[in-house]
Amino acid sequence: MTDSTTGTSSGAPADSASGPASGPASGPASGPASGPVTEAWRYSRRRFLGAAGAVAGAAGVAGFAGGLLTGRGGEAAPAPASGTTGPAHPFHGEHQAGILTPAQDRLHFAAFDVTTSSRDELIGLLRAWTSAAAELTQGRAVSSGSAVGYDAPPLDTGEATGLQASRLTITIGFGPTLFRTEDGRDRFGIAGRQPKLLTRLPHFPADDLDPRRSDGDLAVQACADDPQVAVHAVRNLSRIAFGAAGIRWAQLGYGRTSSTSTAQETPRNLFGFKEGTANIKLEETDAATQHVWVAPEDDPGAAWLAGGSYLVARRISMHIETWDRTSLREQEAIMGRDRRDGAPLSGGNEFTKPDFAAKGGDGRPLIPEVSHVRLAHPDTNGGHRMLRRGYNFTDGSDALGRLDAGLFFLAFVRDPATQYVPVQNRLSKSDVMMEYIKHTGSALFAVPPGARPGEYLGQSLFST
Amino acid sequence: MTDSTTGTSSGAPADSASGPASGPASGPASGPASGPVTEAWRYSRRRFLGAAGAVAGAAGVAGFAGGLLTGRGGEAAPAPASGTTGPAHPFHGEHQAGILTPAQDRLHFAAFDVTTSSRDELIGLLRAWTSAAAELTQGRAVSSGSAVGYDAPPLDTGEATGLQASRLTITIGFGPTLFRTEDGRDRFGIAGRQPKLLTRLPHFPADDLDPRRSDGDLAVQACADDPQVAVHAVRNLSRIAFGAAGIRWAQLGYGRTSSTSTAQETPRNLFGFKEGTANIKLEETDAATQHVWVAPEDDPGAAWLAGGSYLVARRISMHIETWDRTSLREQEAIMGRDRRDGAPLSGGNEFTKPDFAAKGGDGRPLIPEVSHVRLAHPDTNGGHRMLRRGYNFTDGSDALGRLDAGLFFLAFVRDPATQYVPVQNRLSKSDVMMEYIKHTGSALFAVPPGARPGEYLGQSLFST
Repeated sequence: MTDSTTGTSSGAPADSASGPASGPASGPASGPASGPVTEAWRYSRRRFLGAAGAVAGAAGVAGFAGGLLTGRGGEAAPAPASGTTGPAHPFHGEHQAGILTPAQDRLHFAAFDVTTSSRDELIGLLRAWTSAAAELTQGRAVSSGSAVGYDAPPLDTGEATGLQASRLTITIGFGPTLFRTEDGRDRFGIAGRQPKLLTRLPHFPADDLDPRRSDGDLAVQACADDPQVAVHAVRNLSRIAFGAAGIRWAQLGYGRTSSTSTAQETPRNLFGFKEGTANIKLEETDAATQHVWVAPEDDPGAAWLAGGSYLVARRISMHIETWDRTSLREQEAIMGRDRRDGAPLSGGNEFTKPDFAAKGGDGRPLIPEVSHVRLAHPDTNGGHRMLRRGYNFTDGSDALGRLDAGLFFLAFVRDPATQYVPVQNRLSKSDVMMEYIKHTGSALFAVPPGARPGEYLGQSLFST
Repeated sequence: MTDSTTGTSSGAPADSASGPASGPASGPASGPASGPVTEAWRYSRRRFLGAAGAVAGAAGVAGFAGGLLTGRGGEAAPAPASGTTGPAHPFHGEHQAGILTPAQDRLHFAAFDVTTSSRDELIGLLRAWTSAAAELTQGRAVSSGSAVGYDAPPLDTGEATGLQASRLTITIGFGPTLFRTEDGRDRFGIAGRQPKLLTRLPHFPADDLDPRRSDGDLAVQACADDPQVAVHAVRNLSRIAFGAAGIRWAQLGYGRTSSTSTAQETPRNLFGFKEGTANIKLEETDAATQHVWVAPEDDPGAAWLAGGSYLVARRISMHIETWDRTSLREQEAIMGRDRRDGAPLSGGNEFTKPDFAAKGGDGRPLIPEVSHVRLAHPDTNGGHRMLRRGYNFTDGSDALGRLDAGLFFLAFVRDPATQYVPVQNRLSKSDVMMEYIKHTGSALFAVPPGARPGEYLGQSLFST
């Protein structure tokens, strides 16, 4: 039965597709004599078990296991996770990817608490995360460059095998508590380098925050066009962190709610509206320099953050059922935009600059004073802008059958104290939309600059 | 400011793209004088407000609102939700779509409890759901065929506007409690028509069911390639149900775990393995007749179900972290398959029939007696097969930081008592994989046949 189909037919294409040279940035090629072995060895094992296994003695199988079976580490070796890695973003660079990268469609965000108090272990974790992120974002499996035996757990959990890179980006951030715990301990000798702006966000009016959805020592933002790829990334980083850090909270998102490139169409939030039209686009290099990237002179005591950014995360629950019973007239007055095409109520199209001075025949502004577009607009906020990168979420239904859904707001800013806090204060106090939403989670992270080949993410924080 | 860009430029392409004739199965064309008005009217309004609004009197605006503004109902009219509806599955047919349809990538499943005790209201709900499903699956907005005014809530919640049909299917099922409540009441006069096989699934060994994730009077399975489209469908059906039924529990899924067409690659579950290779494929017409569709003679007392099926839903939580610490050797022994390519451990490739008799040199079967592939295989189960249509799920993390993830198992069978219950009993008793999973939700539904144009889903149950 098994002799005629012993893996040769399926093995052949796999061999040719997954050689170490086919990845866009694959690691050093490794021969079968050292390091991870190639696919050919692996299929040899199955041929052996399939065709010859039935007649081989138990000792022979055991001997095989002690030798060639370490080749199963090839499964976790730096070979592509699939025959084709598909569209991939470069991992290394001046800035981390996942910020000024065209927003992907899906998100898995996780905040971690560090459980070790060893500085070396924390650095080891960041090194391992960097190494894994460099592999995962290129569509390869996690390997850490080493082979493991058949009698060890695979280095990669495997559920993304065969899937494309899917434009995966992995972006890492540091929470205030990484620098100093709530009770003031400097676990890792970095308290003196805590950025001045990296403090817990203030309590905004009407905040109803769940501590189990807020804060954290470390953040991982994984974005991809395939949710299984994003989940796989967080799962494997969480697994790598075992013993050093554990997930504090996590949020899955779908349906990006912002465009970060002029090539992307503005998506809709769960209120059915286009929003964030004034978002910073990656094509606006000057705007990113001005509004997103921390400059060396911004905080001389935290020069390590230059080239990085701050990440504001807010879980905003939406009272979907209430909104859905509101008239279209009121919905549009609350948003200040036309629902169909996103144009401001002062006229034009989606990209027309809102005319906040325009008045109707009744002498009242066409865009109401308390509308969301007015209160959130840079013109109302001293010209300050954010790079928004949020996602819709639906976490099932609550105990009353209502959708547990909303917007997981993510924004990258150079200075949260001027670019985010005043805007949110204004919105929390005056925005009529607040009647339909509730902020249920909150966190602020400092996002270190990117890593060059050989560096790890956050290295500038720990280097002397 | 607004005069030069008053929507004309954006209005033009919208007009040409959203005419009533561009949908693949659009409703009757309606002139501006009656019924939903066309886009041209709508842009007229904005031009009016934008260019002329500033000089028009309040009374004029009010008069406008009383007249043409009802045209905003056009937003919810049977026009495509987007300029292009993209790939769409036909809604009407002998069987419901979403069963023998190539599995889409995303799922939003909702179980409802009926809150009305009026038979007419239940029928009205099924009529309204059928009408909405016929529109949504073709990429159109919910309209119910009628226009509403600007001072009413829009008929469609809007967040799928601009998105494609995304191969959306909506499949509806009836739980045992629809026919007879747990305390024996026949609310809708249909207890006499309850299918004999439609009872609550038995308690299987090691079941740890959460009643808030189990059972229900009605089921809605929405599958699409875009999660926002699937969520939009459930949200709008839930909204339509308001006052007659409410969501009891819901489950979102991503990453289909089964192929239902030979054209689809077998996906991986969260244990990293390909599974369900022996699944019924839509190309196997005879297999569907034999294993999926209820025949008239199956249950003469419930002849209304002929052409329908039974839907088994099981939420299976996976102990991801434990699995990830298991050796590859043990993982493969538990599954009975090669992790890399899904081939049975008896050799061959993914589609090679497992050779359960093949033994290794130690005299033991190459595919272990308690492996999942052996216990679940039709050969072990009297040749009975299921049409599996499950999805991976990740609902964030639990209080200990572990992934709340697993498989939302969905299977369509002609006879759950022979095709599902014995298999699950065998798995629950003997499958080593049970150490790594926990069944946390359970439901069984009778899935009525498809609706022809003019009919509603479930009509055969209520017709005399």
